[in-house]
Amino acid sequence: MNSVSTRTGVWLVGARGGIATCVAVGLAAIKRGLAGTEGLVTARPMFEPLGLIPLDGLVLGGHEIRTGSLRAAADEYRTRAGLFSSELVAAAAGELDEIDARIRPGTALGCGPAINSLDGVAGLLETKLRPAQIVDRLAADMREFAASVRADRLVVLNVASTEPYRAAPPDFARDLPSFEKALASGADGFTAGMLYACAAFRAGAAYVNFTPTPASELPALSELAEKKGLPHCGKDGKTGETLMKTALAPMFVERNFRVLAWEGYNIFGNRDAVVLDNPDNNLAKTSGKDAALRGILGDERTHTRVRIDYTPSLDDWKTAWDFVHFQGWLGTKMILQFIWQGCDSMLAAPLAVDLVRLTDNSLRRGEKGILRHTAAFFKQPVGGGTHDFFAQSRALAEYVTERAGGTVA
Amino acid sequence: MNSVSTRTGVWLVGARGGIATCVAVGLAAIKRGLAGTEGLVTARPMFEPLGLIPLDGLVLGGHEIRTGSLRAAADEYRTRAGLFSSELVAAAAGELDEIDARIRPGTALGCGPAINSLDGVAGLLETKLRPAQIVDRLAADMREFAASVRADRLVVLNVASTEPYRAAPPDFARDLPSFEKALASGADGFTAGMLYACAAFRAGAAYVNFTPTPASELPALSELAEKKGLPHCGKDGKTGETLMKTALAPMFVERNFRVLAWEGYNIFGNRDAVVLDNPDNNLAKTSGKDAALRGILGDERTHTRVRIDYTPSLDDWKTAWDFVHFQGWLGTKMILQFIWQGCDSMLAAPLAVDLVRLTDNSLRRGEKGILRHTAAFFKQPVGGGTHDFFAQSRALAEYVTERAGGTVA
Amino acid sequence: MNSVSTRTGVWLVGARGGIATCVAVGLAAIKRGLAGTEGLVTARPMFEPLGLIPLDGLVLGGHEIRTGSLRAAADEYRTRAGLFSSELVAAAAGELDEIDARIRPGTALGCGPAINSLDGVAGLLETKLRPAQIVDRLAADMREFAASVRADRLVVLNVASTEPYRAAPPDFARDLPSFEKALASGADGFTAGMLYACAAFRAGAAYVNFTPTPASELPALSELAEKKGLPHCGKDGKTGETLMKTALAPMFVERNFRVLAWEGYNIFGNRDAVVLDNPDNNLAKTSGKDAALRGILGDERTHTRVRIDYTPSLDDWKTAWDFVHFQGWLGTKMILQFIWQGCDSMLAAPLAVDLVRLTDNSLRRGEKGILRHTAAFFKQPVGGGTHDFFAQSRALAEYVTERAGGTVA
Amino acid sequence: MNSVSTRTGVWLVGARGGIATCVAVGLAAIKRGLAGTEGLVTARPMFEPLGLIPLDGLVLGGHEIRTGSLRAAADEYRTRAGLFSSELVAAAAGELDEIDARIRPGTALGCGPAINSLDGVAGLLETKLRPAQIVDRLAADMREFAASVRADRLVVLNVASTEPYRAAPPDFARDLPSFEKALASGADGFTAGMLYACAAFRAGAAYVNFTPTPASELPALSELAEKKGLPHCGKDGKTGETLMKTALAPMFVERNFRVLAWEGYNIFGNRDAVVLDNPDNNLAKTSGKDAALRGILGDERTHTRVRIDYTPSLDDWKTAWDFVHFQGWLGTKMILQFIWQGCDSMLAAPLAVDLVRLTDNSLRRGEKGILRHTAAFFKQPVGGGTHDFFAQSRALAEYVTERAGGTVA
Repeated sequence: MNSVSTRTGVWLVGARGGIATCVAVGLAAIKRGLAGTEGLVTARPMFEPLGLIPLDGLVLGGHEIRTGSLRAAADEYRTRAGLFSSELVAAAAGELDEIDARIRPGTALGCGPAINSLDGVAGLLETKLRPAQIVDRLAADMREFAASVRADRLVVLNVASTEPYRAAPPDFARDLPSFEKALASGADGFTAGMLYACAAFRAGAAYVNFTPTPASELPALSELAEKKGLPHCGKDGKTGETLMKTALAPMFVERNFRVLAWEGYNIFGNRDAVVLDNPDNNLAKTSGKDAALRGILGDERTHTRVRIDYTPSLDDWKTAWDFVHFQGWLGTKMILQFIWQGCDSMLAAPLAVDLVRLTDNSLRRGEKGILRHTAAFFKQPVGGGTHDFFAQSRALAEYVTERAGGTVA
Repeated sequence: MNSVSTRTGVWLVGARGGIATCVAVGLAAIKRGLAGTEGLVTARPMFEPLGLIPLDGLVLGGHEIRTGSLRAAADEYRTRAGLFSSELVAAAAGELDEIDARIRPGTALGCGPAINSLDGVAGLLETKLRPAQIVDRLAADMREFAASVRADRLVVLNVASTEPYRAAPPDFARDLPSFEKALASGADGFTAGMLYACAAFRAGAAYVNFTPTPASELPALSELAEKKGLPHCGKDGKTGETLMKTALAPMFVERNFRVLAWEGYNIFGNRDAVVLDNPDNNLAKTSGKDAALRGILGDERTHTRVRIDYTPSLDDWKTAWDFVHFQGWLGTKMILQFIWQGCDSMLAAPLAVDLVRLTDNSLRRGEKGILRHTAAFFKQPVGGGTHDFFAQSRALAEYVTERAGGTVA
Repeated sequence: MNSVSTRTGVWLVGARGGIATCVAVGLAAIKRGLAGTEGLVTARPMFEPLGLIPLDGLVLGGHEIRTGSLRAAADEYRTRAGLFSSELVAAAAGELDEIDARIRPGTALGCGPAINSLDGVAGLLETKLRPAQIVDRLAADMREFAASVRADRLVVLNVASTEPYRAAPPDFARDLPSFEKALASGADGFTAGMLYACAAFRAGAAYVNFTPTPASELPALSELAEKKGLPHCGKDGKTGETLMKTALAPMFVERNFRVLAWEGYNIFGNRDAVVLDNPDNNLAKTSGKDAALRGILGDERTHTRVRIDYTPSLDDWKTAWDFVHFQGWLGTKMILQFIWQGCDSMLAAPLAVDLVRLTDNSLRRGEKGILRHTAAFFKQPVGGGTHDFFAQSRALAEYVTERAGGTVA
Repeated sequence: MNSVSTRTGVWLVGARGGIATCVAVGLAAIKRGLAGTEGLVTARPMFEPLGLIPLDGLVLGGHEIRTGSLRAAADEYRTRAGLFSSELVAAAAGELDEIDARIRPGTALGCGPAINSLDGVAGLLETKLRPAQIVDRLAADMREFAASVRADRLVVLNVASTEPYRAAPPDFARDLPSFEKALASGADGFTAGMLYACAAFRAGAAYVNFTPTPASELPALSELAEKKGLPHCGKDGKTGETLMKTALAPMFVERNFRVLAWEGYNIFGNRDAVVLDNPDNNLAKTSGKDAALRGILGDERTHTRVRIDYTPSLDDWKTAWDFVHFQGWLGTKMILQFIWQGCDSMLAAPLAVDLVRLTDNSLRRGEKGILRHTAAFFKQPVGGGTHDFFAQSRALAEYVTERAGGTVA
């Protein structure tokens, strides 16, 4: 497939958050030759055969529930967490302003008190709107954006904060007719993540869920994507500690070590951490992290724990201490510990761009439904399958090989 | 291939060293149901189709340059490093004595001052013997052992201390005729490792090199193995920090992170560490560890370092601190550190048993030359190829799949 | 004061627990010359002038709520956590049996479900007894012990598991008359720790509280000690992570660093950990650990956290990861992390012996009330004062200097 | 002593190096209210009674062997190591330029190849000058500076790179007459550090040696200081890992733990690290670090090691991993590890300012010779004494208490 000159609209849900800001500044910096493509998986030569959209073919817009500007956000991340140099922010300023002009008020429906109390969350109008009306508004925003930037294709990327944990999705999510009926009747149980995904599909967009929030994997919404012939993937980007876990755990399996305990402690302090300081939102996150590990080790006896705590001074610098207690020959107990000190938004941003490019490519190829080859990017891959990072990476490489040589009109 | 009742002689070079002792105690303990098979790769169900020799089909003997007894060695490791419980040593005592009766004086030719000054190194007779005579003696010991225990097959396993580093092998190692001519003439440049491997092949044994010492990969000795139709593999067991490195480095590659620096510091205090406290022996070890990492990362700019230092109080408990400095999106510098606290001999012992079983199986199948499918077990796989642990593990799995269903008389 | 030949009875509350077992085995081992006095503070030459009771002058007995034997306990700690060598347990066996014969059933009144459900907690008779009767029985046990071993003095040492947290002590603990009245009337609110301390003072014993459980620092019980002219000290032995904190925090103060965050995560798996897995018991422990740190730093803005989690496989090996985020010149954020891997009972045992010796010495000197010079040994020193470990250590040294030269009949 | 309005000239040897730059930017930032005084020991309230010179009373100048400008240096540290924000550099720019105008070419005599090959080391004229002439020139520069800025007092602060290690100082350093004779005759063996200190005393300045380079502690130069009635102190600022060691080691002593091994590995990548990559310069540094630890522990059997390695990507961020292996009760082996991630120049800068203020205060008070109360600031305190950080800190506090209330004209 040739990489013909095209434009893809990228609609960011959470458009002034940490990840979105790092995406925006990063794309501007790379375009100007001020930064390389470190951390961007799809920049590796092995992806060339796919004919992915070039980075400068991506045009950004999005929804946001907080007030402010993208430039102010960039400056805040710079001074507070040292994310960018002042030179970079200055160089990207014009572009950030352009994107800012394309950001529309989002919805915080069902996002719970932790998100609603975030500083600067706009008194959003839709509190008086019924879910169906919110979806209409969101979809209209997306369509208008796509038209205004003359995008050939549209990808909606959810990089908003984690919504509160719910043990089970609402009943109406079981199939599309129930979902649409509930939407029409204004039933309780809708949350922002569902509405964005629904709006995306209605607007003819592909959908990428970088958060642990339930969305396109719900049967009703998968059905909608299928019906509209649209691709989607998710959920919860595999950026740091979980990446480490799913890369290391297979080693213990291969060597037939018995893992007695794997304790993981995460501390960080950005806005996501504030949200996760609420126990409900926290549970939504930790349950996914733990499942990945248990899935690989496959040993009921292993004692695992994941904690995510809020340490304000760390800001975006997530630090994780993992303690792995394992047994080898003659039951000898040994220990592996690792300490991960990563910048959360900076880890997420290139993966978000990767997913946009891969999903856009699938959209262009007419691939619909769940994009299982993206599993390596997620903590809870929507299509299921192994959590083993290297097995997932091989599956991605095989996908590329299979598609290589194909052409698209 | 059926797992018919057979006996395989296992000739340990370094038969009272830490690894050999852990192998001996371990096999006795498993036989008595006092220990499980944690750490033993070939105990995983995926290896069943190969029909490997059962653990109780392995009969041990070997060469050793130090005086003492295996039981005393076991007790020393127990009290000094906490390797075994007293119950385990007591249960294995009879078996250790039997093995001890099968241990013969080895050779320390060319092993350098660090090894020769080890406490209890016997005033070995062969200092007056010419290399050719030493080989004859070693091979005779091996043959006699095999006959005395009525072994169906013989595998020689080198688990001795690391010999001093040499920038290049002696000239005569370039082909078999030169080697044999040098042997006959008593030329300088022979070291124990070469003589053991040569003796092994002459005695019709397969050969496994668990050490970084040059041996069967030398062209002359590979040629000899080929000529005799014998399989061999090596070198330098991948037990701890290097295992971690070769499992983690591919993750950095997959995610397109640029690794700026990977600094590895190892401390431990067993007899191997005493030997490695000598700079020459140390270099032989660190160069291999570093090469594996550089091979995977493939980035000239990466700053790497491996240090192995002697910390007496740690005894067999090797502790490694690795500091990985890497760049992601926008060149953001991030850090991964890990601390590995493993018991060196206990990590090595099951892998040594795995290699004996796999090599024995190849011998039974008539496979000769370098056993490339064993690469996952080595820091410097003799057959070359990737150092990526998971790629090596896949190759091993594929080997098993290919052989599955085959039969051996 | 001369170290005349005397015998001091040491009555252990929790006499078959980890600390008690390590005390018993340790004293037996030292007596036989099988172990040195590492970890025993009072073995330092600076304490010689005090004329402390020699180690072989200590005779052990105690209360315990679980069934079993001390020898079985020692063997359990040996095989499960590697605490002792088999040689040591064998050498101490006779002595352990003697002590065992002096152990009487304790009380678990008010200890909550976590302690009551411990494996082997005896169906204790006193559930039908009123508190006053329990105290009588406990005191009688103590007196009988002192008489039977012909002890010159008696010290009661509480090394039992942590009782559940209570925001405030019961009202009746405010003065001795109220306490005795409540005791007589069988009021609710008594817990084992109070009863043991009350019994100790009634039996004429000095009292050392190595646990965080409320006891002799309650006004009513302090009053009783004062009235009886007895010394006491506590509470909660400062063994590992808190020791580190109170040694390191003063460094940050001295250097005028601003500590932004100090996060402490503790994992371990012994019986105490099982008890602490209950949130109520956990809170009793963590609140004390946190207070020590905050007391030294004295900066309201510092973000601190202490977690103690249960990791079964670690058994007695408490592992703590502390992450200290601090600011220096120009507000530069820097990081100190430490990982502590200590054997909890082995850290506590010598300190418990130290406290017995120091308290016994005070008893002999006729010192009564709170022993403020023992603050360095406690997480929550009963007499208050600084938590700075080195300031506490200086105070202890000054106490020794002041007493040096004094004599006791 | 009142803090009357005075000006103190601070002459920095190594005036465009990392520490000097951090001092210069820091003082400018604090003056403008853009930064607090974190990390500045003398900003603690306890120092108020001394009447130290206010920060805005310090006027900077200095010697430097590299070309370039202070503003360029600040910008380099900002972009390369993230030391300052762009706002801070901009705010300080004017002041940096003023200081730059007061920087004169230094001397690199005897500094060895590592320092001489530093990028931008000026082809210094004095290679043709005799040592005596160099001293004259350096002293003239200092005097001229003091006069030009109308300084009431002058303090020379050596913050240059570490000179190569020498087992023993040159013979002529044994007394002042020999030194002056050697100077006059142009003998071999002089190094820059000695010449700067000599020049300082000749110029009537107090002298602070923040480096491990031999200087004012040499008998000849101490004699000169004494003769001129000038105070001096040093050597080698105790900034990071050694600070940690001398704060933690006393804890092991107090608790009577036996330290079996204390292994310290340091990695960093600034210009000092480049210099230390040369084995001779490295040895000068590590020997001091090791001595401090051994001095406190006082146990011949303890195995200690200090390594300092060059990791370019870390730049100014020195990372140290220390592994402490110790024995407690019954010889139980336990482990403490710490990881220090500090910004070297930022740690050093405030201490350098502290020393200038304290030394200036002594100068004003007429105190001469070695300032023993500054020992807490140094790895190798010139006046000897304990390395115990808290004992040193107490000595400093006592000095303050003694001086409090005193007055100076």
